[in-house]
Amino acid sequence: MERIKKISILGVGLMGGSFALSLKKIFPQIEIIGYARSRKTFQRLSQLNVVDKVELDLKQCVCDSDLIVLAAPIYAITDYLKQIGPYLKKEAIVIDLGSTKEQIGEAAKKYLAKNVDFVGCHPLSGSDKSGAEFSSPKLYQGSLCIVTADANKKATQIIKNLWQKLGAKVIFMDALSHDKILSSVSHVMHLVSFSLTDFVPRNYLKFAQASFKDLTRISNSPANVWADIFISNKKNIIKDASKVIEILKRFQSLIKKNKKEEIISLIEKINRKQKLSRCQRTTGYARG
Amino acid sequence: MERIKKISILGVGLMGGSFALSLKKIFPQIEIIGYARSRKTFQRLSQLNVVDKVELDLKQCVCDSDLIVLAAPIYAITDYLKQIGPYLKKEAIVIDLGSTKEQIGEAAKKYLAKNVDFVGCHPLSGSDKSGAEFSSPKLYQGSLCIVTADANKKATQIIKNLWQKLGAKVIFMDALSHDKILSSVSHVMHLVSFSLTDFVPRNYLKFAQASFKDLTRISNSPANVWADIFISNKKNIIKDASKVIEILKRFQSLIKKNKKEEIISLIEKINRKQKLSRCQRTTGYARG
Repeated sequence: MERIKKISILGVGLMGGSFALSLKKIFPQIEIIGYARSRKTFQRLSQLNVVDKVELDLKQCVCDSDLIVLAAPIYAITDYLKQIGPYLKKEAIVIDLGSTKEQIGEAAKKYLAKNVDFVGCHPLSGSDKSGAEFSSPKLYQGSLCIVTADANKKATQIIKNLWQKLGAKVIFMDALSHDKILSSVSHVMHLVSFSLTDFVPRNYLKFAQASFKDLTRISNSPANVWADIFISNKKNIIKDASKVIEILKRFQSLIKKNKKEEIISLIEKINRKQKLSRCQRTTGYARG
Repeated sequence: MERIKKISILGVGLMGGSFALSLKKIFPQIEIIGYARSRKTFQRLSQLNVVDKVELDLKQCVCDSDLIVLAAPIYAITDYLKQIGPYLKKEAIVIDLGSTKEQIGEAAKKYLAKNVDFVGCHPLSGSDKSGAEFSSPKLYQGSLCIVTADANKKATQIIKNLWQKLGAKVIFMDALSHDKILSSVSHVMHLVSFSLTDFVPRNYLKFAQASFKDLTRISNSPANVWADIFISNKKNIIKDASKVIEILKRFQSLIKKNKKEEIISLIEKINRKQKLSRCQRTTGYARG
């Protein structure tokens, strides 16, 4: 970590802000700069004390940083990669905290110089809340962070150590596998949750119980973030949604034909899998 | 309530057991008999102290009761109605705690004598747990209880008062409306939750986060209970599942075509509805 003296965060929201607070707690000597795209954001961030300094000029913000952290919606990250590419100093490390990894990895390859290292990161943490004001120095403690980069590279090791210092468990995976797995366990869950909230008639909402609350809680997730996730991981998500639709149709068919015993067997199989899922999770429940 | 001196509970599980404990706390003078279908259940219930007495003989259990509570899966309730019909005393009141109301109401009309009153009840409470051992005298406190019966009848008023004494808010509704609304806010939520757990590849489970946990929590719900709910409310549930499928397909189409602005508008609309749903719920979150 002695290599990292200055860090720039592009996208100081909940994830970026929490990254800053967590880091600052362990490495108070590191200078952390937050980028503000507008004067309004500049003023808001300046008052929050989440970063050491807020910078309005993108070039100034990144040009002498050792580590640049991109914590924004997917296509804002790819835009940042394009914009900052020419400004970065030799041997700078760039990481992102995005929820899909393939397209970001491709943009990094395209826009960053050979002497800059890119390490894709996806910390599986989040919150119902969004915005820098909800930043917490504990957000990453006990979470799982998926890193999509060559584990043997020096930069990857530095970033791995950094996440571990923040209390996260790091696992390595290629970007394609990441996007496939996350589509199933997270992205499609969000798609379904949005769909269920859209579906329920407004005048029935007052009869909603815990089941509805649980299945629709994450449908308050931010639209701009999720539109980018859905589009950047469309191949997996469309395929997975079709699989969910097939299962729903199978249930419909069994119900229509009064196949009680088959429905019971199917649900009992599902009950066992649900039980297994509670044992298998690697980490505490990260939000999001 | 002075009319009610003896109560029989058929189906002493979480709901029936909690009903017994709640009542006993307020009306210690009322005798509560629990029916046991087998010697094994007889022994288990006898040790639990949830009811005053456990009875193996169905006729003995119900013949001189003032109130008979049916707290079992839907088709077990309709079976009980058929079986107990001939044994009930004049002016006895029969209630059920089932999650669908139309078929139970029809069975009550068919099998109960004219001088017996039937009042359909659906307390919107439950728990992740099932079984009499998890009974709680507080299960119905602050919950919503839908009563599907003629509000002007004397028996209905007695039952309404009883639920209010247990801390529940009572609303009246016809059985058809009940089944339609509950299909949307609860039954389809369970169907989707079962489907999502069935869908997720087993080897991905270790990457599951809060989103997966929330959407699949209720997929641990008991198979026999839910097979009956699905079949007894099939018309509404099949229709509602098709509506959810249509919305998923609409999302798929927008994602496929990279319609980012339309996806954002749709999710923003959903965000507002989710927010509204949090304000509109009549009660605390009942489980189930």
